[in-house]
Amino acid sequence: MKRYEQLADDLQAQIERGVYRPGERIPSVRQASRQQQLSVTTVLRAYLVLESRGLIESRPQSGYFVRARASAPAEAELHMSAPAAEPSAVDVSRLVLSTLRSIARDDAVPLGSPYPDASQFPVQRLARYAQTIGRRRTRWGVIDDLPPGNQELIRQIARRYAERGIVVEPGEIVVTIGATEAINLCLQAVAKPGDTIAVESPTFYAMLHAIERMGMRALEVATHPVDGIDLDALERVLERERIAACMVMPNFQNPLGFQMPDTRKRALVELLSKHGVPAIESDVYHELHFGDSTPSALKSFDRDGLVLHCASFTKSLSPRYRIGWAMPGRYRDQVEKLKFLNTLATPAIEQLAIAEYLKYDGYDFHLRRMRKQYAQQASLMSAMVRRFFPEGTRLSQPQGGYVLWVELPRQVDAMKLYTVALAQGITVGPGHMFSASTDYRHFIRLNYSYPWSRQIEDALKMLGRLASECAAAR
Amino acid sequence: MKRYEQLADDLQAQIERGVYRPGERIPSVRQASRQQQLSVTTVLRAYLVLESRGLIESRPQSGYFVRARASAPAEAELHMSAPAAEPSAVDVSRLVLSTLRSIARDDAVPLGSPYPDASQFPVQRLARYAQTIGRRRTRWGVIDDLPPGNQELIRQIARRYAERGIVVEPGEIVVTIGATEAINLCLQAVAKPGDTIAVESPTFYAMLHAIERMGMRALEVATHPVDGIDLDALERVLERERIAACMVMPNFQNPLGFQMPDTRKRALVELLSKHGVPAIESDVYHELHFGDSTPSALKSFDRDGLVLHCASFTKSLSPRYRIGWAMPGRYRDQVEKLKFLNTLATPAIEQLAIAEYLKYDGYDFHLRRMRKQYAQQASLMSAMVRRFFPEGTRLSQPQGGYVLWVELPRQVDAMKLYTVALAQGITVGPGHMFSASTDYRHFIRLNYSYPWSRQIEDALKMLGRLASECAAAR
Repeated sequence: MKRYEQLADDLQAQIERGVYRPGERIPSVRQASRQQQLSVTTVLRAYLVLESRGLIESRPQSGYFVRARASAPAEAELHMSAPAAEPSAVDVSRLVLSTLRSIARDDAVPLGSPYPDASQFPVQRLARYAQTIGRRRTRWGVIDDLPPGNQELIRQIARRYAERGIVVEPGEIVVTIGATEAINLCLQAVAKPGDTIAVESPTFYAMLHAIERMGMRALEVATHPVDGIDLDALERVLERERIAACMVMPNFQNPLGFQMPDTRKRALVELLSKHGVPAIESDVYHELHFGDSTPSALKSFDRDGLVLHCASFTKSLSPRYRIGWAMPGRYRDQVEKLKFLNTLATPAIEQLAIAEYLKYDGYDFHLRRMRKQYAQQASLMSAMVRRFFPEGTRLSQPQGGYVLWVELPRQVDAMKLYTVALAQGITVGPGHMFSASTDYRHFIRLNYSYPWSRQIEDALKMLGRLASECAAAR
Repeated sequence: MKRYEQLADDLQAQIERGVYRPGERIPSVRQASRQQQLSVTTVLRAYLVLESRGLIESRPQSGYFVRARASAPAEAELHMSAPAAEPSAVDVSRLVLSTLRSIARDDAVPLGSPYPDASQFPVQRLARYAQTIGRRRTRWGVIDDLPPGNQELIRQIARRYAERGIVVEPGEIVVTIGATEAINLCLQAVAKPGDTIAVESPTFYAMLHAIERMGMRALEVATHPVDGIDLDALERVLERERIAACMVMPNFQNPLGFQMPDTRKRALVELLSKHGVPAIESDVYHELHFGDSTPSALKSFDRDGLVLHCASFTKSLSPRYRIGWAMPGRYRDQVEKLKFLNTLATPAIEQLAIAEYLKYDGYDFHLRRMRKQYAQQASLMSAMVRRFFPEGTRLSQPQGGYVLWVELPRQVDAMKLYTVALAQGITVGPGHMFSASTDYRHFIRLNYSYPWSRQIEDALKMLGRLASECAAAR
């Protein structure tokens, strides 16, 4: 445990024992630093953690005070989204691609990155396996690697689902080029150009891309920031429109970060089954839970083979290897055929290297370390945003993953903020990427996967200042 | 030079000097073996080479005789194809996938494989580069690898085109998952579901797959076994039908192996340009020419940006790495966007390993060795087929690549032959895979990329016997 965590835990225990009562001031940062012989930075971080736990609040010029009720500040919570329930054509990919490109600046603070910090991954170990495998001569070349993919990797994937309580036939799994290809193939298997697809609002742009690629239409459905897609709103849509599929991320949705409760996951599967509508589920963040255990998936509640489940190793093990998979239920044969047509085979060495790593190496150890770090960084970043962003800012409460979704005052244009922040060497993900509509143009997505540093703290303060300026400019 | 090649060259010189005259018998295999102190197998191979050069012929029970004219036997040449000129839906992928899977039997003689013999490739050298690159930590993970792809690889690809006399802007190149993805994206960029696509007849099934994937229709055009797609037939089609694109393989077409003459390539580009129809060109075998220099491409004659050129390293360097590219002319931005939507990024390590290999290692040396070997093996296999297959068999005269296209007597069902051959541990590629029609159901494709061996000779003799049995069975 780091020192600021220890200090935060000690202070929390004192508050809970009544040493400091609601409304009372706790020692100033300077006092605490002297008393505890800790640096000012360490104390500041500890106080940020306590703020993010809802235990203390900072009052300008006065110091830190114990809050009346131990809960996140009510005004900072997001509301249920309220999209216009009309299908619309999708054309976000050029914006997303150009944004991602400018985010790749080497010298910028990567708060806008959609990817986890790659320096945390077991790159060396995987490279060692890849090296051994790459030197093996093979008689057949690519023919060994035809869909559904490498059998040893498929067995390892099935084993992890079994450990998570999800029974999967290895024969159902089709290996793909990242979850991106899995989502594309699943959507193509169940819907055709011109069809309408129900999605969350906001939606992860990978879903919008799949819809755009096939010339389909997206219908955005009201989504609760904690509970996920609104089942009543979805039911009304299903009764009114011909919906070809519903695409969701029930675990740690990007950008909202919620984990749909089990009862709602089950109800969603039942609602869609009742209407005979396939569910395409992206579960790419399932390993990055902050809770004690890997969450269930829609697939856990699938009786009719109508859930097409997609996941990958790109967010939890190796972004560059681009290994994902689909478990498409009753559409399995169709997805396998589309995989063969789309890219013929998935590169073999990466598949084998991951299979060997899963068999012999410390994947779970690596994941435990990442989860702990991400959870801590989530609360630090949340506290910084609450503290330094303009009044009226609301933010998500991620239960896993590595992104924070921030609603700024309505008059802030996120593309404007993106531009002025980039000029300061800071990247953010503009909300424009997460909808075919204009609903999220005052939202930004922030990445907290990078190890906490002074640079990130300074960037967040600067962002808060820039956002305030954008808010005041109109 | 191998001993059988030396013997063949010596005998050819003797025939040309008139030592042996047309109609005269040359020494029997046994005599020559004794005289030259060479094994019977070596002499047999030399005689096969001479047969394939059209210099000698074998007469049952009598021996080998010098032929009247030094040319390939007229009766063994393929005719121009004559497909029904109607668009039709395509559904060949299940047949192709199941055939490829059964071909992957480890113990079978791989005459049916669509892939080059992977044991000839510089696997170790590439693995060494991949290893070094794989260990490098990268800040951004996948974000470095966004379309259009790795810049160093793109520069190396452009350099090779420049050396071949084709001027390419690096900015036009988009790296893809093999040529498969390149062809798919190019087709999707220029046509939509339901459109009609003109193709060669027979067609490489990768083209048919791309058409099937998008729910388009194929219109097969008469194709000459030496000159390529028939321009008159194509012109009639263009005048009669709305054609959204034309897909061809002008160099070493799979399965016919022809190299379209430059005049015809130019005329094809002009004809299509006149009608405003984009040409999608697969040039995956261009490095495997038997002639002295790398052939031109349709792209060489493209003035209007209407040629979408696709190629890859999978046939000439590394099948497993799955690195290909597109040069889509005026459709470049659309193809780049579709690449982003389809698979997000191409795995980075493979791109970098190939770029390093091209920069520092002996690609041209490797290619020279392969070309020489393939050319030799092509003539050996052609001679074996002429000798041991049933009367009425015709075969292609490949100018590059590694496949031979064999027309059997019409009553032979290639799927039946495929099945009985597989039972004997020999694979073949049934002609059914190369058309949406029934025109090629008495054709097979044979792979000659594997080093010549007794096993391959025996397999070809056995195949000839099985084909004769199939021919007699009806």
